[in-house]
Amino acid sequence: MSVKPPRPYYVPVGNEEQVFKAAYRQNLSIVLKGPTGCGKTRFVEAMAHDLDRPLITVACHDDLTTADLVGRFLLHGGETEWVDGPLTRAVRDGAICYLDEVVEARQDTTVVLHPLADHRRQLPIERLGITLDAAPGFGLVVSYNPGYQSVLKDLKDSTRQRMVAIDFGFPTPDVEEKILVNEARIDHERAAELVRLGQAIRRLETGGLREVASTRVLIAAGQLIAEGLSAREAARAAIAGPLTDDSTVTRGLAEMIDVYMPDSTAD
Amino acid sequence: MSVKPPRPYYVPVGNEEQVFKAAYRQNLSIVLKGPTGCGKTRFVEAMAHDLDRPLITVACHDDLTTADLVGRFLLHGGETEWVDGPLTRAVRDGAICYLDEVVEARQDTTVVLHPLADHRRQLPIERLGITLDAAPGFGLVVSYNPGYQSVLKDLKDSTRQRMVAIDFGFPTPDVEEKILVNEARIDHERAAELVRLGQAIRRLETGGLREVASTRVLIAAGQLIAEGLSAREAARAAIAGPLTDDSTVTRGLAEMIDVYMPDSTAD
Amino acid sequence: MSVKPPRPYYVPVGNEEQVFKAAYRQNLSIVLKGPTGCGKTRFVEAMAHDLDRPLITVACHDDLTTADLVGRFLLHGGETEWVDGPLTRAVRDGAICYLDEVVEARQDTTVVLHPLADHRRQLPIERLGITLDAAPGFGLVVSYNPGYQSVLKDLKDSTRQRMVAIDFGFPTPDVEEKILVNEARIDHERAAELVRLGQAIRRLETGGLREVASTRVLIAAGQLIAEGLSAREAARAAIAGPLTDDSTVTRGLAEMIDVYMPDSTAD
Amino acid sequence: MSVKPPRPYYVPVGNEEQVFKAAYRQNLSIVLKGPTGCGKTRFVEAMAHDLDRPLITVACHDDLTTADLVGRFLLHGGETEWVDGPLTRAVRDGAICYLDEVVEARQDTTVVLHPLADHRRQLPIERLGITLDAAPGFGLVVSYNPGYQSVLKDLKDSTRQRMVAIDFGFPTPDVEEKILVNEARIDHERAAELVRLGQAIRRLETGGLREVASTRVLIAAGQLIAEGLSAREAARAAIAGPLTDDSTVTRGLAEMIDVYMPDSTAD
Amino acid sequence: MSVKPPRPYYVPVGNEEQVFKAAYRQNLSIVLKGPTGCGKTRFVEAMAHDLDRPLITVACHDDLTTADLVGRFLLHGGETEWVDGPLTRAVRDGAICYLDEVVEARQDTTVVLHPLADHRRQLPIERLGITLDAAPGFGLVVSYNPGYQSVLKDLKDSTRQRMVAIDFGFPTPDVEEKILVNEARIDHERAAELVRLGQAIRRLETGGLREVASTRVLIAAGQLIAEGLSAREAARAAIAGPLTDDSTVTRGLAEMIDVYMPDSTAD
Amino acid sequence: MSVKPPRPYYVPVGNEEQVFKAAYRQNLSIVLKGPTGCGKTRFVEAMAHDLDRPLITVACHDDLTTADLVGRFLLHGGETEWVDGPLTRAVRDGAICYLDEVVEARQDTTVVLHPLADHRRQLPIERLGITLDAAPGFGLVVSYNPGYQSVLKDLKDSTRQRMVAIDFGFPTPDVEEKILVNEARIDHERAAELVRLGQAIRRLETGGLREVASTRVLIAAGQLIAEGLSAREAARAAIAGPLTDDSTVTRGLAEMIDVYMPDSTAD
Repeated sequence: MSVKPPRPYYVPVGNEEQVFKAAYRQNLSIVLKGPTGCGKTRFVEAMAHDLDRPLITVACHDDLTTADLVGRFLLHGGETEWVDGPLTRAVRDGAICYLDEVVEARQDTTVVLHPLADHRRQLPIERLGITLDAAPGFGLVVSYNPGYQSVLKDLKDSTRQRMVAIDFGFPTPDVEEKILVNEARIDHERAAELVRLGQAIRRLETGGLREVASTRVLIAAGQLIAEGLSAREAARAAIAGPLTDDSTVTRGLAEMIDVYMPDSTAD
Repeated sequence: MSVKPPRPYYVPVGNEEQVFKAAYRQNLSIVLKGPTGCGKTRFVEAMAHDLDRPLITVACHDDLTTADLVGRFLLHGGETEWVDGPLTRAVRDGAICYLDEVVEARQDTTVVLHPLADHRRQLPIERLGITLDAAPGFGLVVSYNPGYQSVLKDLKDSTRQRMVAIDFGFPTPDVEEKILVNEARIDHERAAELVRLGQAIRRLETGGLREVASTRVLIAAGQLIAEGLSAREAARAAIAGPLTDDSTVTRGLAEMIDVYMPDSTAD
Repeated sequence: MSVKPPRPYYVPVGNEEQVFKAAYRQNLSIVLKGPTGCGKTRFVEAMAHDLDRPLITVACHDDLTTADLVGRFLLHGGETEWVDGPLTRAVRDGAICYLDEVVEARQDTTVVLHPLADHRRQLPIERLGITLDAAPGFGLVVSYNPGYQSVLKDLKDSTRQRMVAIDFGFPTPDVEEKILVNEARIDHERAAELVRLGQAIRRLETGGLREVASTRVLIAAGQLIAEGLSAREAARAAIAGPLTDDSTVTRGLAEMIDVYMPDSTAD
Repeated sequence: MSVKPPRPYYVPVGNEEQVFKAAYRQNLSIVLKGPTGCGKTRFVEAMAHDLDRPLITVACHDDLTTADLVGRFLLHGGETEWVDGPLTRAVRDGAICYLDEVVEARQDTTVVLHPLADHRRQLPIERLGITLDAAPGFGLVVSYNPGYQSVLKDLKDSTRQRMVAIDFGFPTPDVEEKILVNEARIDHERAAELVRLGQAIRRLETGGLREVASTRVLIAAGQLIAEGLSAREAARAAIAGPLTDDSTVTRGLAEMIDVYMPDSTAD
Repeated sequence: MSVKPPRPYYVPVGNEEQVFKAAYRQNLSIVLKGPTGCGKTRFVEAMAHDLDRPLITVACHDDLTTADLVGRFLLHGGETEWVDGPLTRAVRDGAICYLDEVVEARQDTTVVLHPLADHRRQLPIERLGITLDAAPGFGLVVSYNPGYQSVLKDLKDSTRQRMVAIDFGFPTPDVEEKILVNEARIDHERAAELVRLGQAIRRLETGGLREVASTRVLIAAGQLIAEGLSAREAARAAIAGPLTDDSTVTRGLAEMIDVYMPDSTAD
Repeated sequence: MSVKPPRPYYVPVGNEEQVFKAAYRQNLSIVLKGPTGCGKTRFVEAMAHDLDRPLITVACHDDLTTADLVGRFLLHGGETEWVDGPLTRAVRDGAICYLDEVVEARQDTTVVLHPLADHRRQLPIERLGITLDAAPGFGLVVSYNPGYQSVLKDLKDSTRQRMVAIDFGFPTPDVEEKILVNEARIDHERAAELVRLGQAIRRLETGGLREVASTRVLIAAGQLIAEGLSAREAARAAIAGPLTDDSTVTRGLAEMIDVYMPDSTAD
């Protein structure tokens, strides 16, 4: 009786939807490569919607262990009781399991993916002494940001070669403007202004900047504008602040903001 | 029937109150950047008061784990019983959760914030196999001191770009004088003297000084004066002592104290 | 009554099947050396089929402990109950135990293999205070990729010298073409095209490339073609994407793909 | 009915008693800085006596965790039962809590002090889900030796700036002589001889010496003399031995001992 | 009623049997020094047989703890029950305890040996609060390979000086030939061929080779020959493969094999 | 009714017995400094005998924790039950507690000694929430070898300055000869020969030698001689073997042995 929710808002840039669906149909795992805030999570949400599969997302981190993915025994009434982890639930239910920023996880969590990611499609659960065959519909998707991987934190080649890769960049200006209007509820003019600022920042040599302005920070600036802040105030708080702690770079970004937001209420 | 307590004493310096409230209304997370002892904690207390939300503060540290934030199972009468952590309590109750010095925490504690900090506003609790939607009114605020972040300890870009930034510095002399009178219960003349000393120390090249004199140490010096110590004794114990262990620098600070506190009882 | 499943598809390249079976008959352990994705796992599956022994595979990783291999006590109804690990099950049942990427495991997991790998063929289980004699038919097989072992992660000499080594490379072009046709369900022409591309990439100096294109990624590309993607799209997603994150190298691979897939639908 | 014990023997050197009591009355935390064996512990004992508060001392070390300070659950009769740590006991009882060599503790133990050390005077106990307000009379005192802090082990600025500092050195010769007579039960002449030796050693460039002779080692030498050893034997065992392992430096110290103890029974 | 099994096959090279037995009779501990695969384990088995003592062997590794040697509490039916480790069993039963590759163990495991290895012959079990006197007949034997000890992993001097040392090398050619005939069940001619190859490899400067060919790998090659492989195939798989991963060195070894196995079936 | 056992065999070299007993009577802790195998353990056994106190010895190591010294809770019948560690037993019973090679222990184990080692003579047991006063007769003795302390592993100055130091070297030739006759049950001539060899080795520049020949290894050589080995065989196994793994140094030692044992049966 539950009504299917509307498709998450996602505007395709290239052939990413075809590649995703072809790989999914062939039981191939998928790795999404791209910078932070460019829409990878939203893309997976849209794909899960189109393919009509539940989506289980895991934000990976340094201390994520195999047990966090696969499950563990908990004590209930003097009995130990097994509780499935998110990966096991996805394997049993035929869901799409999305491991966000997978390289943050410890190596053991990536290797546990191997028998799932190749022709075996199996999840061995050593603690239970069983091996699960993935239910039809199960899909494995991981993401990572090639921009800031260190040598220590990288996807192993034997993991990478088990996956089909889809590259993500930032959307084109007109697509990004559409996204801003839709997400921040601001008018096209303001959205275009923010997109031009974002583009200018992305053109900078990244000296001093840790990463360029993502679509996400442009949306946040838009939201502050929608809340009544001036465009300059909004851009300083939502764009310049997150991008740098350096006072010289901050000054430079403030000047760019003044140039690209000329009609803003002076402040 | 409980009467609302008075507003915590906070004097705004710029547009920080507007930016905070706009971001809060838009469900955007907030990062406060600034040196130790400049009033970030007090500011959040005042904002929580104005927005009429409970405030839950967590002092982050090296060994703070996800479980410390989210909760854990404890054994009671042979049963394991789940006990919510402070972040989960804030998510359930629609409180403002303030993570002080968030970069001190282990990486996993910052990544657990991601689904809460973006449009999803969700807290997955893997141990319970559930995902909580944040109650209306929930807000996430973190702080850090850009002055002494190392490469190893820094907020990840994917976390930063999920947040609106507010920069903090020390208050202007007249605001700081007002704060000292209010907090240390000393007269304006003594307060002005301490503020001038603080300003002089902040103008020093920081060679030998670990960090400059914060508003907090000026208040402490004021408190010692209110307790009957001479201004020089108070400044040495509450300002010079915490700032350095180096004997040459200590001597230099002592001379500055003598210059700026000329009318102090000789000692 | 269970019918023996068909032999896993494996085409021999040299005398690897004879060496494996001779070593197995002499109770000698075996180490398979070779790059990722060249067919080591499939080879062991075929050998276990020919020798009519069950196969127990363990994907090794950084946090794999002796207990993960040998077994541990779990709490059930207030009693601790011993649960065999995969190695112990293999020892009791006379199965072939295959430790994939064994150098990833912690040193203790490799040393526990010593009494099993030499003339003793015993598994001491300290936690139970017993020593198991391996059942007839037990065989120990490990694999590793000599290409990316660091000094820190390497098989100890005392472990290596307990094993017979079989070297693996990629199959010859005609064998690889046969594999692609069989596994990806594409025609011989397309398969030959992919094999020629793979060969060309393997001839490159590996500057920029992390590892060369394995048979596995060629199969994945074939699968995407079978799903309706153009050969170029398929090769970019399944071959170039997994091999590099570098934009210059990516461009170079894209040009190679264009050269080797001239008759592909332009895109 | 319990009679208050006598005041611990402590002879003030400067205004340290006034500063301590003023800070205590203002609810300010206190950091004692000074070399090992100069009387910091005894000073805190005397202050607690004068202020009529119980004293709870914790010797900090590398593995001291927050739980060691705050408390933990222990299992009793199948129930977990909370047991307060020393800091929590001090907070509940309004005692003075003295953390000796606080920089030895792990960072988390110092950060847990923050809400206690500033205007909040609160101890959040996350495991219980409660926050304790410090009882009236609670005071926080920490000590450290600036002489041998490494970069890795240092009090964080945000901790230091929450505290009033009191510097300690060794007592003046006449005070130290009085202390030796009182503590070691030797006559003034012997005490003066030991003080002169201690002073001479403190004047040495510290090449080869790890730290200078503290009041504590002079007392120990006095005790051995009181027990019948010759002054030279006593000084070698109690002063030279603890100060160095180097044979050249040992010889130098032995010669100084011979010079400063001329009337000692030859040995 | 149990019949004593036959003596393990061991051919002495020098006075190692006399030294072992003299040290054993004097309750002195013994350290066996020598390369991997030269027969140390077999020697201890033969000595235990001659002295008519049970032998308990422990393969040491990085994660071997004192508890693994001494014992631990396990939970049974709500009670913790002590389970002796192998060292404790040997101490109680007067067995010979052989710690193979002892330097692999953590330092605590070597220090726990001290009171056992000197005149005290005691094993303190702190967890039980008892100290066991070793039963008559108890003997402690450890082995290590001086060739690949790093600075980090070495036997402490205070441990070494509690032991009598016996040096092991590879057997002389005629002894080694006898061993091969006996262990691999091949004829003398084939055995002599393998011994000559082994000797040639041992004469090589070890550039590229990790360690030289042990008696153990020669036996393995002999076993493959007995199974029907050609001598060259056997030597490549059992000798060259375990010794190197380097392709140049592999080629060099292959040429040596061709030279020393001229009458092998060409392949 | 138990008869006091005979005094452990110890021959004094200097005033070490007087210093030990004077410090003990004054409740001062004692640190024994000296090389491995020079008789420190035996000395403490003799002192405990003379002072008629029980002796509790703890061999320190890398993983020794405070809990190992102080005690821990163990689960018995569903109840946690406290079990005293050796230090707590000594404190309660007024025994002498000897921590052998104390610098091997983790820093926390040395800091727990502070309140015991100074005028407080107290052992705080945080887990029990109690503080024990040491029973009369309690004494604390630690030992370490200054020869091989690294910067990382050293006794903290604040620990050292709480202790009286006694230096140990090897005994004089005639004392050492007496010890050998007594301990190894060999005649004076053989003992003198071994002592002369030991002295010669101690005169060597230590290039290549890890440490010099201790009294302990001379005794072991004597024991092998008593068992019927030739003096040369005994010296090679018990002296040269433990001192070096280097083949050049081994050859040099073998030549020295031949020179100093000229009348040995040739071998």
